[in-house]
Amino acid sequence: MALPEEFHEIAKRVNNWGRWGAGDEIGTLNLITDEVVRQAAAGVRSGRRVPLALPLRQDGVQTGMIPGRVNPLHAMVQTNQELFGPGTVACSDDVVTMGLQAGTHWDALPHVSHSGRIYNGRPAHTVSAHAGAEFGGIDKARHVVSRGVLLDVARARGVDRLAGDHAVTPEDLAAAEEFGAVRVRAGDIVLVRTGQVQVYLAGDKHGYGYPSPGLSVRCPEWFHARDVAAVANDTLTFEIFPPEIDNLWLPVHALDLVEMGMLQGQNWNLEELSTACGEERRYAFLLSAMPEPFVGATGTPVAPVAIL
Amino acid sequence: MALPEEFHEIAKRVNNWGRWGAGDEIGTLNLITDEVVRQAAAGVRSGRRVPLALPLRQDGVQTGMIPGRVNPLHAMVQTNQELFGPGTVACSDDVVTMGLQAGTHWDALPHVSHSGRIYNGRPAHTVSAHAGAEFGGIDKARHVVSRGVLLDVARARGVDRLAGDHAVTPEDLAAAEEFGAVRVRAGDIVLVRTGQVQVYLAGDKHGYGYPSPGLSVRCPEWFHARDVAAVANDTLTFEIFPPEIDNLWLPVHALDLVEMGMLQGQNWNLEELSTACGEERRYAFLLSAMPEPFVGATGTPVAPVAIL
Amino acid sequence: MALPEEFHEIAKRVNNWGRWGAGDEIGTLNLITDEVVRQAAAGVRSGRRVPLALPLRQDGVQTGMIPGRVNPLHAMVQTNQELFGPGTVACSDDVVTMGLQAGTHWDALPHVSHSGRIYNGRPAHTVSAHAGAEFGGIDKARHVVSRGVLLDVARARGVDRLAGDHAVTPEDLAAAEEFGAVRVRAGDIVLVRTGQVQVYLAGDKHGYGYPSPGLSVRCPEWFHARDVAAVANDTLTFEIFPPEIDNLWLPVHALDLVEMGMLQGQNWNLEELSTACGEERRYAFLLSAMPEPFVGATGTPVAPVAIL
Amino acid sequence: MALPEEFHEIAKRVNNWGRWGAGDEIGTLNLITDEVVRQAAAGVRSGRRVPLALPLRQDGVQTGMIPGRVNPLHAMVQTNQELFGPGTVACSDDVVTMGLQAGTHWDALPHVSHSGRIYNGRPAHTVSAHAGAEFGGIDKARHVVSRGVLLDVARARGVDRLAGDHAVTPEDLAAAEEFGAVRVRAGDIVLVRTGQVQVYLAGDKHGYGYPSPGLSVRCPEWFHARDVAAVANDTLTFEIFPPEIDNLWLPVHALDLVEMGMLQGQNWNLEELSTACGEERRYAFLLSAMPEPFVGATGTPVAPVAIL
Repeated sequence: MALPEEFHEIAKRVNNWGRWGAGDEIGTLNLITDEVVRQAAAGVRSGRRVPLALPLRQDGVQTGMIPGRVNPLHAMVQTNQELFGPGTVACSDDVVTMGLQAGTHWDALPHVSHSGRIYNGRPAHTVSAHAGAEFGGIDKARHVVSRGVLLDVARARGVDRLAGDHAVTPEDLAAAEEFGAVRVRAGDIVLVRTGQVQVYLAGDKHGYGYPSPGLSVRCPEWFHARDVAAVANDTLTFEIFPPEIDNLWLPVHALDLVEMGMLQGQNWNLEELSTACGEERRYAFLLSAMPEPFVGATGTPVAPVAIL
Repeated sequence: MALPEEFHEIAKRVNNWGRWGAGDEIGTLNLITDEVVRQAAAGVRSGRRVPLALPLRQDGVQTGMIPGRVNPLHAMVQTNQELFGPGTVACSDDVVTMGLQAGTHWDALPHVSHSGRIYNGRPAHTVSAHAGAEFGGIDKARHVVSRGVLLDVARARGVDRLAGDHAVTPEDLAAAEEFGAVRVRAGDIVLVRTGQVQVYLAGDKHGYGYPSPGLSVRCPEWFHARDVAAVANDTLTFEIFPPEIDNLWLPVHALDLVEMGMLQGQNWNLEELSTACGEERRYAFLLSAMPEPFVGATGTPVAPVAIL
Repeated sequence: MALPEEFHEIAKRVNNWGRWGAGDEIGTLNLITDEVVRQAAAGVRSGRRVPLALPLRQDGVQTGMIPGRVNPLHAMVQTNQELFGPGTVACSDDVVTMGLQAGTHWDALPHVSHSGRIYNGRPAHTVSAHAGAEFGGIDKARHVVSRGVLLDVARARGVDRLAGDHAVTPEDLAAAEEFGAVRVRAGDIVLVRTGQVQVYLAGDKHGYGYPSPGLSVRCPEWFHARDVAAVANDTLTFEIFPPEIDNLWLPVHALDLVEMGMLQGQNWNLEELSTACGEERRYAFLLSAMPEPFVGATGTPVAPVAIL
Repeated sequence: MALPEEFHEIAKRVNNWGRWGAGDEIGTLNLITDEVVRQAAAGVRSGRRVPLALPLRQDGVQTGMIPGRVNPLHAMVQTNQELFGPGTVACSDDVVTMGLQAGTHWDALPHVSHSGRIYNGRPAHTVSAHAGAEFGGIDKARHVVSRGVLLDVARARGVDRLAGDHAVTPEDLAAAEEFGAVRVRAGDIVLVRTGQVQVYLAGDKHGYGYPSPGLSVRCPEWFHARDVAAVANDTLTFEIFPPEIDNLWLPVHALDLVEMGMLQGQNWNLEELSTACGEERRYAFLLSAMPEPFVGATGTPVAPVAIL
C-alpha cells in the first residue's frame, strides 16, 4: 500500500530538502535567527514564567498501546547514603528508564520516514539500533529558543476543549491568530491548544489518546507558508486521531518531519498558558524548549517554559 | 564521626529554614521574581543562544566511581517501523536508562542530607525508594529561568583552566565579577567557570573527576550574602575534590542544598559561553535551565541555554 | 497498627531463626542435601522436561497496581550490525529493564520484613537502595535444585481452577498429596497449583491478580512440619488476595520469608506440568529453579524446569 | 569485503538448514531427546550441584568496549515499604537494566547473521527493534536440559589456564575427552574450559576480554560430527580473540549460530566445576541451563547448574 497521491502533492509543496544545503540536519530551526530571539526577548512584559511539561512519572500518558514507549520508571540507587562513612553528608541518587517520546517531548526529524527517506532525502536506514539516528538526531537541535505564539483554537471557538473528532484546520489557526491579536511570523514556535490534555489531567488516559482532536493534514502548508520553526500541541498524537483520511496514518508527521524538517511537540500542557495569555491579553512570548541532547535520539523529553 | 564545629558555624550563618515558610520546598528559587526575569529579558542584546549541556551518551562523564550513577544507555524499540502496515509512514522510537545526576544536571534540594535532615528541617527519611523525595523533589522547581551571570574565574586569573587543587574562593568570585564588569544580584543564577570540563572534552574522564578544582567551603556564605538563586559549574563534584578539610566530604553540598535550599548544577559546559561572553563583553544574560519534572527525583538532567 | 496476636503465635511455631546458625542466609534451602538431589535424579523416569516460566514481555502479568514493578521492556542496541566492517559477520544485541518480581520469579528472603526484622533476626534496614540486601540476597541462594512435588489442588478438587475466594488450606494440600499418590518430604520444593494463571493466559490480567485464590495463613505451619525447602504457585500474590483476615496483609509472605526463611515463587505456569503429571501419573520430579544471581537483589526472574 | 572462501567451505560442511524442517527455530536442541535426558539423570551419582553463573552486578565483565552491552544496573523501587499502612508487613522491590549478553549468557540463534541470513535461511531483517527476533528468539529454546560434559582443555594440557593466544582445536577437545575419560555424544551440551575467567575473577576485566584463548574456527566441524546440542565456555568472546585469520571476525559465531543452529554460551564460570569433576573423577553430569524466556530476544542471562 502506497501513500495516496493527495499526500504526495502536499509533500511537494511543503518540501524543504536542500533549502539549507544538502548537509543540513536541523530544517526549519534555521529560521530562528538571533534577531528573532532578540525581538522575542524584547517583547517580554511581565517576566511571568509558565512551565509547559507534564510531570514525568510512572502514571504518565502512555497506556501501553504504542509498543515500547514506556512511561518513566523512577528508582533509587542511594537514599541518604553516607558514602564517606558514618556521620558524613549523605547522598540520594536516582535512575530513570523511559521512552523518549513518552511524555512532553519533541519528535526529532528522523522520528518518522516515508518511502525510505527521512528529512533532506537521507536514507531511512541511517536510523539504526546501533547508532540511533546518524543524521538529524535531537542532539543536533541545539538552540530551540524563539518567539512562541499560542494559537488557542479551543478558546477561539468558545469551548474549553475541542471535540474528539475535530481536525484543526488552517482556518482554525487563522481564527486563533485573530482571537489572540497576534500574527505568526518566520521563526516562531507555534503552540496549538486543543484542550485535549484536560482529559488526561482528569484521569482518563485512554480517552486522552483516542479519539483525539489534532492537526489536519492541511496544516503543514499553513506552517510552511508562514515559515514556522516548530509546532507543539496538547495531544498524544499531534494530528487528529483516528485520521481524517482512511488508511492515511500520520500524514502530518510525514509532512512536518520528513518533508519540511520541522520539529513537532506532543503532550504539552497548555492549560496554564491559556489562562496566563488570557489574563495578560498577549499570545506571544519568549519560549525556551531546549532538547535534552541525547546523541542520535529520535526524540527527547522537554521542559518548555514560556516567558511572558 | 560528626561534622566539625567549623561546618556547623557556617551552616548557622547561611541557614534559610523557615525563611519562606515551614512548607517551602524551593528555597532560594523564591528569590527569582517576575521582575528579575523581566529585567533579565530586557538585558538581552544580540539574541545569541549558547547551549550549556554536554551530549547525553554512553560515553559520558561517569566512570563507574559513583555506584549506580550510570551514563545514558540509549536503545531502540522501533526503527522505521511501518506500524500501520506496509507502505505507511514508518516510526522510530527510543528508550533511555540513565542516572539523573549522570550528565549536565541539577541537584534537587533533597539530594543530600546531614544530621538526619534535608532542607527546611524535614526528616531525611522522607526520601525513599518508594516515593523518591516527598519534599523538595525536582518537580517542585518549576520556574528555573532568571538572569544568569558567568563568573569566569579561570579567565579572570588569566588561565585556561584552574589547577586541580584550586579551591575557588569568595575572593575569586569577586575578582571574576570585576573581570566581567558585572555584579551578582538577588535572584541571579551564577555560573562559575573553572575550565575543568576541558579535561573531559579532551578525552580524560578520570582526570576530569579527580583531582578537580571547585568551590571552597567558604563560597556558600558569599552566595548567601548576595541572595543568589542557584549556582552551577563545569566540574563533576561541584566543590573542590578531594576536599579542602580532611574528612569533611561534600560540605558545600550540605550548605547549599540542606542549609540554604539552593539548587546546584554540575557538569555544565561553560566553554562556548566563556567565548561568547568574551566576544560580546557581557557576562550577564537570560538563562533558562528548566528541570525535567521527574516526580520525587533528587536530580534531573538539564539542557540550559544562555540568551545573550 | 500492629500485626494481630494470631499472627505472632503462628510465627513463633514456624520460626527458624538460628536453626542453621546466626550467620545463615539461605534458610530452608539448607534442607536440600546432596542425597535429596541424588534421589530426585534417580526418580526421573521419562526424561520429559516441562518449563514453568511465563514468557517475559511487555505484555506480562503486571498491571501497574504495584508501584515500580514493571513488565520487561525489551529494546535493541544492535540489529545485524557489521561491527567489524561491511560484509563481516553481523551482530544483534538487546537490553532489558524489568522488575525482578514482575514475572515468574522467586522472592528472596529479605523481600519482606515485619516488626523491623528480616530472616534470622537481621535488621530490616540492611536492605537499602545503595547495596540492595546485604543479607540473604537472591545471589546467596546458589543451589536451587531439588525434588519437586506438584500439589494439584485444583484437580484434586475436581475443578480446572479454584474460585477467586478459595484459600488453599493444609487439608487441600494433604488431599492433593493423596490425589497425586505422593508424600512431601524434607527438602522438597512444593508447587501448588490453583489454575489461576489460566485467567492471565486467557487475556484478563486484572482478573488474574484480583480476586485470586492462594495459600491460607494456615499453610506455613504445614510446610514447616514437612520441612519443605521452597514453595511456588501460579498466582500473582502467592497467598489468597484479598486476604482472609481483615487488615492482615501478606501474612504468608511474612511467615515464609521472615520467620521460616523459605523462598517463595509466584506467577509460575503449572498448566503444562499438570497435564504431564496427569499423563505420567507421577507428581514428583527433579526440579531445577536456579535464581539469576543478582547481587543483593530481593527477587529474581527464574526459568524453572521439571524433569519427569 | 566478503567472507573468505575458507569460511564458506566449512559453512557448507556444518550447515543444518532444513535438517529439522523449514520451520525449525531451535536447531541442534532437537538433538536433546527425552532419552538423552533420562540417561543423564540416571548418571547422577552424588547429587552435588555446581552453579556456573557469574554474579550479576554493575561491576560485571563488560568494559564498555561493546556498545550498549551494559553490566546490570540494580536499583530499588521499594525498601521495607509498608504498602498497606503503618505496622503492616513491609516490602522491598527491585528493578534491573542490563544487556542480555552482558554476563553469563546464551546467544540465541539470531544473535548473529552473515550474508543477510540467520539460521535456517531466514532473512536477517527478521530481527528488528520493533519485535526483536521474529524467528529463533531465545524464548523458543524452552528445554535446555541435557547431559553436560566438561572438556577441561586447560587441565588436560597441564595448565591452570590457556595462554591468551591459544586457539582451542579439535585435537584439544579430543585430548580433553581422554583426560576426562568421557566421550561426547549426540545431544550433549559441551562446556569447554580455558581457565580464562580467572583473569576476571582476579580483577582484570580488560585482560579477561583481550587477548583471550577461545575456540578455533576448526571446532564447529568437530561439534557437528558429534551432534553436540550446545556449547559454552569461560571467555568473553567464545572464540579466540583477536581471531586466528586476519579480518575474519567471529567465524565461530557464524558457523555455530547461523549454519548449525547451535546455542553458544559465554562468560560461564567453570572453575568450581573443574574442581568438582576432578574430585569426583567424572566429567559428565546432568546440566540444566534454562534460558529466561525473553520474547524475541537474541540472548539471555542464564544461571546454569551441573548436577553430579
